[in-house]
Amino acid sequence: MTQFKEPVFDVAQLAHVELLSPKPQETVEFFTRFLGMSVTAREGQSVYLKAYEDSYQNTLKITESKDAGLGHVGWRTHTPKALERRVQAVEATGLGKGWIDGDVGHGPAYQFTTPDGHNMELMFEVDYYKQQDGEKSRLLNRNVKRPDRGVPVRRLDHINLMTSDTAKNTDFMLDALGFRLREQIQDQGTPLGSWMSVSNLVHEIAFMQEPNQVPGKLHHLCYWYGIPQNLFDISDLLKDNDYHIEVPPNKHGISQAFCMYVHEPGGNRIELFGDAGYLITDPTFEPVIWEMKDTPGYGDTWIGTAFPESWWTQGTPVTLPEVIIAK
Amino acid sequence: MTQFKEPVFDVAQLAHVELLSPKPQETVEFFTRFLGMSVTAREGQSVYLKAYEDSYQNTLKITESKDAGLGHVGWRTHTPKALERRVQAVEATGLGKGWIDGDVGHGPAYQFTTPDGHNMELMFEVDYYKQQDGEKSRLLNRNVKRPDRGVPVRRLDHINLMTSDTAKNTDFMLDALGFRLREQIQDQGTPLGSWMSVSNLVHEIAFMQEPNQVPGKLHHLCYWYGIPQNLFDISDLLKDNDYHIEVPPNKHGISQAFCMYVHEPGGNRIELFGDAGYLITDPTFEPVIWEMKDTPGYGDTWIGTAFPESWWTQGTPVTLPEVIIAK
Amino acid sequence: MTQFKEPVFDVAQLAHVELLSPKPQETVEFFTRFLGMSVTAREGQSVYLKAYEDSYQNTLKITESKDAGLGHVGWRTHTPKALERRVQAVEATGLGKGWIDGDVGHGPAYQFTTPDGHNMELMFEVDYYKQQDGEKSRLLNRNVKRPDRGVPVRRLDHINLMTSDTAKNTDFMLDALGFRLREQIQDQGTPLGSWMSVSNLVHEIAFMQEPNQVPGKLHHLCYWYGIPQNLFDISDLLKDNDYHIEVPPNKHGISQAFCMYVHEPGGNRIELFGDAGYLITDPTFEPVIWEMKDTPGYGDTWIGTAFPESWWTQGTPVTLPEVIIAK
Amino acid sequence: MTQFKEPVFDVAQLAHVELLSPKPQETVEFFTRFLGMSVTAREGQSVYLKAYEDSYQNTLKITESKDAGLGHVGWRTHTPKALERRVQAVEATGLGKGWIDGDVGHGPAYQFTTPDGHNMELMFEVDYYKQQDGEKSRLLNRNVKRPDRGVPVRRLDHINLMTSDTAKNTDFMLDALGFRLREQIQDQGTPLGSWMSVSNLVHEIAFMQEPNQVPGKLHHLCYWYGIPQNLFDISDLLKDNDYHIEVPPNKHGISQAFCMYVHEPGGNRIELFGDAGYLITDPTFEPVIWEMKDTPGYGDTWIGTAFPESWWTQGTPVTLPEVIIAK
Repeated sequence: MTQFKEPVFDVAQLAHVELLSPKPQETVEFFTRFLGMSVTAREGQSVYLKAYEDSYQNTLKITESKDAGLGHVGWRTHTPKALERRVQAVEATGLGKGWIDGDVGHGPAYQFTTPDGHNMELMFEVDYYKQQDGEKSRLLNRNVKRPDRGVPVRRLDHINLMTSDTAKNTDFMLDALGFRLREQIQDQGTPLGSWMSVSNLVHEIAFMQEPNQVPGKLHHLCYWYGIPQNLFDISDLLKDNDYHIEVPPNKHGISQAFCMYVHEPGGNRIELFGDAGYLITDPTFEPVIWEMKDTPGYGDTWIGTAFPESWWTQGTPVTLPEVIIAK
Repeated sequence: MTQFKEPVFDVAQLAHVELLSPKPQETVEFFTRFLGMSVTAREGQSVYLKAYEDSYQNTLKITESKDAGLGHVGWRTHTPKALERRVQAVEATGLGKGWIDGDVGHGPAYQFTTPDGHNMELMFEVDYYKQQDGEKSRLLNRNVKRPDRGVPVRRLDHINLMTSDTAKNTDFMLDALGFRLREQIQDQGTPLGSWMSVSNLVHEIAFMQEPNQVPGKLHHLCYWYGIPQNLFDISDLLKDNDYHIEVPPNKHGISQAFCMYVHEPGGNRIELFGDAGYLITDPTFEPVIWEMKDTPGYGDTWIGTAFPESWWTQGTPVTLPEVIIAK
Repeated sequence: MTQFKEPVFDVAQLAHVELLSPKPQETVEFFTRFLGMSVTAREGQSVYLKAYEDSYQNTLKITESKDAGLGHVGWRTHTPKALERRVQAVEATGLGKGWIDGDVGHGPAYQFTTPDGHNMELMFEVDYYKQQDGEKSRLLNRNVKRPDRGVPVRRLDHINLMTSDTAKNTDFMLDALGFRLREQIQDQGTPLGSWMSVSNLVHEIAFMQEPNQVPGKLHHLCYWYGIPQNLFDISDLLKDNDYHIEVPPNKHGISQAFCMYVHEPGGNRIELFGDAGYLITDPTFEPVIWEMKDTPGYGDTWIGTAFPESWWTQGTPVTLPEVIIAK
Repeated sequence: MTQFKEPVFDVAQLAHVELLSPKPQETVEFFTRFLGMSVTAREGQSVYLKAYEDSYQNTLKITESKDAGLGHVGWRTHTPKALERRVQAVEATGLGKGWIDGDVGHGPAYQFTTPDGHNMELMFEVDYYKQQDGEKSRLLNRNVKRPDRGVPVRRLDHINLMTSDTAKNTDFMLDALGFRLREQIQDQGTPLGSWMSVSNLVHEIAFMQEPNQVPGKLHHLCYWYGIPQNLFDISDLLKDNDYHIEVPPNKHGISQAFCMYVHEPGGNRIELFGDAGYLITDPTFEPVIWEMKDTPGYGDTWIGTAFPESWWTQGTPVTLPEVIIAK
């Protein structure tokens, strides 16, 4: 039996995500009226929201901006010491930016970027959401009552970022933050997509190759239903309200998740998960490697139609062709 | 901010369970014909089985026995060192029994009992299932093709044991094995049921109070579908084949899992899970405490009818009334 | 081959139902906020509503009243001539009351009662709902867009009435109105429940025996989702809003329908259907006869727990014990 | 109010369909192993099958043949007199072929063709399936127990034929057989697809324009689950067994049915229905007219991806390009 490296258990979860939107009001309406989320705070040019089974003060911050895209990704560690360890590891990479006092919903956070320039932060101290009168559910493991608006999502699930160099950014998450590689799409050995987690989920974060090597884009943010039918319900509601559903309910091969994709009015792609896919509890789980030539058909979609070209190529902010050429 | 104890990450997962059955042939037929599991080995008086997304050689061992009940519970650790640490902790409790060389599907294992006398073992080395010709799925994260028999379960989920003393046995799992308490039913401060996990699941193991303080019983073993409708499909099939469904599809308050219960022909209660319930990624998650007086209605069943008396009182082996009185 | 009577094809459908409510405002809130129905008219002490796939001006009329119960049941015929034929047949029974000019949503109607005294009417001329700006769906067979409120029901399904004499009232529906008997519960030959239809549905109307022979009660009114999961969604929403769900999602043996029951705030029992059950296209379909001794377990509930005593015994208006004894 | 023509209620249902297969053994395995149907008779080069909720001796006849395609379509009337009326109407069109004594499962039948040459027959006398020992379900409205093979379909639903002239063939079904037009796709006034029924279903039969005006092809035969999730279950099973799923689970705009398409090994397209779509009980229902330019996106698929070119153009038997050119 070979030597087993003791695994790292420092980052615990994806705590929150900040999205940038050029149409913040419409973006907030999308998340509240259709996905049933609640606004829990407003400050400056930002609105903070949560899903009804999110227990923190917020899991989504929407900030007004000229272009759509990612604001930042917030990771919470298991303990204060785990936070210290990860900050040290990130500092060693030279990608650290330093501490901030906190934001609405959390305490001190250490800011840094991925090699691709995506903004991230690490923190331990968070604020739990304080229920208002009449909001509390008798289902004690549910943060607040199920909303009567739209088809309400239950909790934040994961983030997917486009990168100019999938291999390099994947290594950063594995080495500096202790993520484990779960699945990967390769083209003759070159990683084009990586799915990584710090938990039993197949991923809290994925990286996909931006076809023109443009750095720093967001591919999508995902909220979770856990119930397959709910994807059809929300699709029906969104279609009747003239939203464009980029990918209708479909089953990924990678992660086995029942999924769909829609663009929120600000332009960012939102994924919704309709089941738990599969969970990884095997401590010596070996990454599942897919070949690009097997898509479409197996890795991207197991039961479903091929994803449209836009899904493979477009992220936010949208980059104009000439900008790409200039690079 | 208070001091946070560094959490233990040693036990990784529930690896397998051994059930005792006085009708092993019928028990095996139940798991293969209706739940779609496969026999992967036979040895002595035992048959070994796995579900189609279980990756190990087996997750279920059915052993012929005069009475139904639990054979043993097998836990796998994250690393060999984690195994050493847990063995040391168990030995310190005086409940250790010592090492065995292994069994079909795994290597050296350290045997011990809970304070209640339930047999358990810890191991690290396991054998992965070797696919036969034509069995391999092109869905690379699926161990073998989906079976065409019955309504096939996907993977082993959890075990629930009845105990003579819920508090004491809970403490053992938390202290010696590093489990985290996730939910608990209390009657005026006395724990009557504990749901514990080493992962993002709400539980890999639960303890429920045996009403007559009889030690060592099995309450149920659970396999997982992850798809709500599948519980109705298997119920329909089982009912048409004259099985008694003790609890039809129902939603637990605790764990929020969509569940059902049926007795396999040997007499052991089998639970089937139809979704992922909720997952715990919050590293400072506080145990959810339910009061016994809130059942039925909230903790046991959120959307569904009260569980029958049998569910609250009966485990395997079934104890005869005079035996109970004699205690 | 025996002689086949030419079947009657005169009554086409259940067109609308009037419910009486002592709490009309709360009743309307139940149907609009939770079941997603729309108010299409208000007149006098009545409010008119429709589901989003109902194509008529209304299918539900809620009228303020001291007690809960049935207002009346409206049947639409296939043609004007069919209306004439049925009016003639009803008149011949002596139960006719005569013509009214119409009501909000329909033209001239012939009023009558069942032998038990339940108010009914026959009509042919109806008004279709006129979509407001922005309401029209691009799904051309859908009347208006799917609502973003609650878990919206799609269309009116059926009515179930309690009767003092199931056999006599069943015969009236078959003989005077041309219904076909589809399923029946009998106790040693005495009908205790009849399910009847004029279409491929198992029933547009059912009669159940009132245990104390109190005439004229309503057992329940049913709206249709057609999607099993939606019953769990609406149950979750209603439970989180402190509604009492009398029967959680369950599968009837009779009709095979996936169903649930809840009381609206005015006190009337509302059923919701989560699938199509089975449909009858066989023109020589023989009524399915169940024995009362097979309930619970088969006829009432195929996959599910026994229905509560209240379901078997209570209708609206609720009759006080002394009134029952006096009879 | 305009004059209403008394509607025709003579044809009651689609009773059975004969498919031709060049690989009858594989075709039968597809329907039995994966769709859970049962072989109820074998005679000559034909095998007869039924689904578990079909009550007749058979609903599907598979006959060995050089090419795939339609054998014939069998319609059952409401009464013997209705049969006489329809035979008379068909004879008047000159498309009648005359009476046969019967076939396995039914009595005398009157054979004819559509203008396009599709073989059909009308009958009244049918044989009900006689349950073998142990086959009978305690669910009295279910013909036999739910099978433990594959993901079993419940009943025959409808047939879809490609025609060289949609308008002409539609008129034949409406005029000679009394069908009602429910939905239609038109291209600037020319019918390209017609959905017709004699019941509350949106269709028992549909006609679609063959793009090269080749007459007499089969587009697909449909069996019914009535449960949305079952389409994902059967897709998963079929994909793991290397079947090509032409259209994964998707929601039609027309009929609102949740559907999927797969080719059986003989080459015929099989549709599976996962819900009831919508039902038509309105006796003055006006046909829903879709414009070809609105596909893809609304009529063909409401929630789902555009259908592949093959779905729009290919039927069985497959016609070679030169044959088409020669026409």
